[in-house]
Amino acid sequence: MISSVRPTVVIIGGGFGGINVAKRLSRANVNVVLLDRSNHHLFQPLLYQVATAVLTPADIAFPIRRIFRRQKNVTVYRAEIVRIDLARSVVVQEDGTETRFDWLVIAAGAGQSYFGHPEWEAVAPGMKTIEDASRIRGRVLQAFEDAEAESDPEAQQAHLRFVVVGGGPTGVELSGAIKELAVDAMDPDFRHFDAETAHVILIEAGPRLLNAMSEASSQAARDALERMGVEVRLNTRVTGVDEGGVLIGSERIRTDTVLWAAGVEASPLAKSLGVPLDHSGRIIVKHDCSLPGYPRVFAIGDVSAATCATTKTLVPGVCPAAVQMGNYVGDLIAKESKFGLSDTRSDSAARVGFSYWDKGTLATIGRAKAVADLGKRHFKGFFAWLLWGFVHIFFLIGFRNRVFVALGWAVSYMLFTKGSRIILGDPRSRVLHRIAGPISPRAEP
Amino acid sequence: MISSVRPTVVIIGGGFGGINVAKRLSRANVNVVLLDRSNHHLFQPLLYQVATAVLTPADIAFPIRRIFRRQKNVTVYRAEIVRIDLARSVVVQEDGTETRFDWLVIAAGAGQSYFGHPEWEAVAPGMKTIEDASRIRGRVLQAFEDAEAESDPEAQQAHLRFVVVGGGPTGVELSGAIKELAVDAMDPDFRHFDAETAHVILIEAGPRLLNAMSEASSQAARDALERMGVEVRLNTRVTGVDEGGVLIGSERIRTDTVLWAAGVEASPLAKSLGVPLDHSGRIIVKHDCSLPGYPRVFAIGDVSAATCATTKTLVPGVCPAAVQMGNYVGDLIAKESKFGLSDTRSDSAARVGFSYWDKGTLATIGRAKAVADLGKRHFKGFFAWLLWGFVHIFFLIGFRNRVFVALGWAVSYMLFTKGSRIILGDPRSRVLHRIAGPISPRAEP
Repeated sequence: MISSVRPTVVIIGGGFGGINVAKRLSRANVNVVLLDRSNHHLFQPLLYQVATAVLTPADIAFPIRRIFRRQKNVTVYRAEIVRIDLARSVVVQEDGTETRFDWLVIAAGAGQSYFGHPEWEAVAPGMKTIEDASRIRGRVLQAFEDAEAESDPEAQQAHLRFVVVGGGPTGVELSGAIKELAVDAMDPDFRHFDAETAHVILIEAGPRLLNAMSEASSQAARDALERMGVEVRLNTRVTGVDEGGVLIGSERIRTDTVLWAAGVEASPLAKSLGVPLDHSGRIIVKHDCSLPGYPRVFAIGDVSAATCATTKTLVPGVCPAAVQMGNYVGDLIAKESKFGLSDTRSDSAARVGFSYWDKGTLATIGRAKAVADLGKRHFKGFFAWLLWGFVHIFFLIGFRNRVFVALGWAVSYMLFTKGSRIILGDPRSRVLHRIAGPISPRAEP
Repeated sequence: MISSVRPTVVIIGGGFGGINVAKRLSRANVNVVLLDRSNHHLFQPLLYQVATAVLTPADIAFPIRRIFRRQKNVTVYRAEIVRIDLARSVVVQEDGTETRFDWLVIAAGAGQSYFGHPEWEAVAPGMKTIEDASRIRGRVLQAFEDAEAESDPEAQQAHLRFVVVGGGPTGVELSGAIKELAVDAMDPDFRHFDAETAHVILIEAGPRLLNAMSEASSQAARDALERMGVEVRLNTRVTGVDEGGVLIGSERIRTDTVLWAAGVEASPLAKSLGVPLDHSGRIIVKHDCSLPGYPRVFAIGDVSAATCATTKTLVPGVCPAAVQMGNYVGDLIAKESKFGLSDTRSDSAARVGFSYWDKGTLATIGRAKAVADLGKRHFKGFFAWLLWGFVHIFFLIGFRNRVFVALGWAVSYMLFTKGSRIILGDPRSRVLHRIAGPISPRAEP
């Protein structure tokens, strides 16, 4: 075996899509180069638990190179790719370093979308990375600190008001978890206010929560949140976000803390390709996840807009879809790479297309509360929550992480406490336009 | 009981000193106001394990207000105190907010000292806070990432060279832990270098390591480090630190990563008092830890220079000393606060002075390696290491933290892995003067 004839498979992104491509190539005679801007694979479904102090960053993040410790045909680099040159078959890093590919898999994921208002991001952070979640946790915890030091009742109430924009799974989970954090964990710790009065408002532009799930689950989620004391506002569109709060038409909601979970936008890398994108900036791929005209270049996961070969519907932007696309493309490259690069069998039209198998959808609302759609059946409450917990533990990568997450949940569940209530630095230091308001002199204790 | 006549005890700092003062006041008829710039109490002796990816920040940090959840006479504020006005009996926050005190305990701790070279801090971070430890972890891990992407052997070797300045407990623990991180955890994960060749250099200006411990323990620590492959340089003074490395007279050690554990300097708050300070900026207190002329103002822990009433020697800047001073001052205030503020029994001269009880000193070097001085007896090796582990678990605050730290150690010990290898953001973004060198084009894998 002459090493120089081994083709190079470059994978951009170490998320659910990218790592599964690499895993499927473990026996293939290829060199795999996996590039990611961070050094860790992130279990995004539990990111909201880092933001609400249940878990710590290391519980849901795992070093990518550790995953491939024993798979010697994979080399991992921490690198930010800013451009892809399809004509020259290279990917380009921030500093100009180029990596040549024979096969390319773009699995760069998506960021938060502010629907044409990027300036809102400074005030209303989204939740896509560990850094985002740490920052949100700091903001939420600092709001309680500010309330303790505040003597003006109206300003204090604004500190204790939390607005979550977007009624998808992240928004539902986040608003439930913030209310629980306030009631279970924070309440006994403060002297100058009743943390149970913390006011969480969940704003959704559409007519129901969790619109990818069944009507029954949407309604169950809404009922559960309202019983917990979360204010749910449907058919409500945010028209402005600034330091003082949120605008909804002419109504202003005064708050310190706006969290954004309202929409996604594919990685800006997609724009550098010069291929057709959909309205969310996603790469419109063929039936085999390849790019039109480039049978050895694929886009998978949240960066792609793929159509299921079986149902002819759009593949949803969820983890299982990214995993399945990763497996599909990995197997495809493993098979075709045997033929050599001059072979014509890498023909997009001849490939069996990608089909998404929907195993069901789960969303959690809080302690012993969740909803599940499994085929035509809908579950809610404790059983759905147990199922949610098992599924999430099962798909977490790494023995240590599974043990620690399970233990973190057990402690949190039994002791009604949140273990990771650590504010790192100044949680507002990255806010660009924030004007620090005057703090009123403290009342004598 | 009329609430307005209760005296206010202000405590600055939620470290080992401050929290023990507050705990001892649990039955006293006083209002306790505890002020800290962060929201958490930090178990500093294990900070180096966060820096070397064994533990996560939440394992060794605990919300201060959670400690006093049930002690209703304590109110905790997150506040940075910048000035103390003894004449007016107020402490002043950054934003001008003032808090009046009847009794004051200054327990603000110490920061890193760069011996008149504050500009070195940007290149050689110290290790006093959770943020410091996270930053060091990011730097150390990023150095390995840079080595993987580097094709020039000399530059690669510089990425894999780590210089630790200061041979006290922190420097010894840190250099041993970095070498272990490289050998145990990192080595199988990289393709382009042998992580076992990572070169750790520990530099100490004095003639021996751990100069607060016995000669036998100093020698044992040095032997153990050298057997692990750490280069120990005694009687060596660092004369310069810059982006390219460390200067020792005319010798330059080329390295990316310089970590500073060489000296401490009391909180700058001490300077605002207008009382005599020692050469490290510490407040020179009387036999009862009070300030000369202010019998109701105390300084304890690392911010104070106290003399033991029994041995007439300086009380060392270690955790047990801070705890004991906290207990002493807490009991003293609890007793004297009964008399009322107009009473003259708060007389410094009439008080029994503070005596430090030295229970022994422990320092760990690595996996199953530690040294212990207990009275006249010295231990080393596995027994000392077990003792070190038990003592540190025992004094950790919080059930959750004890369980997670013990589990983290067990996993780390059994699996030879480091669980928290997460780089958050750009670990070098806070480096002020760093010049990003050109990265050579990557070799084909």
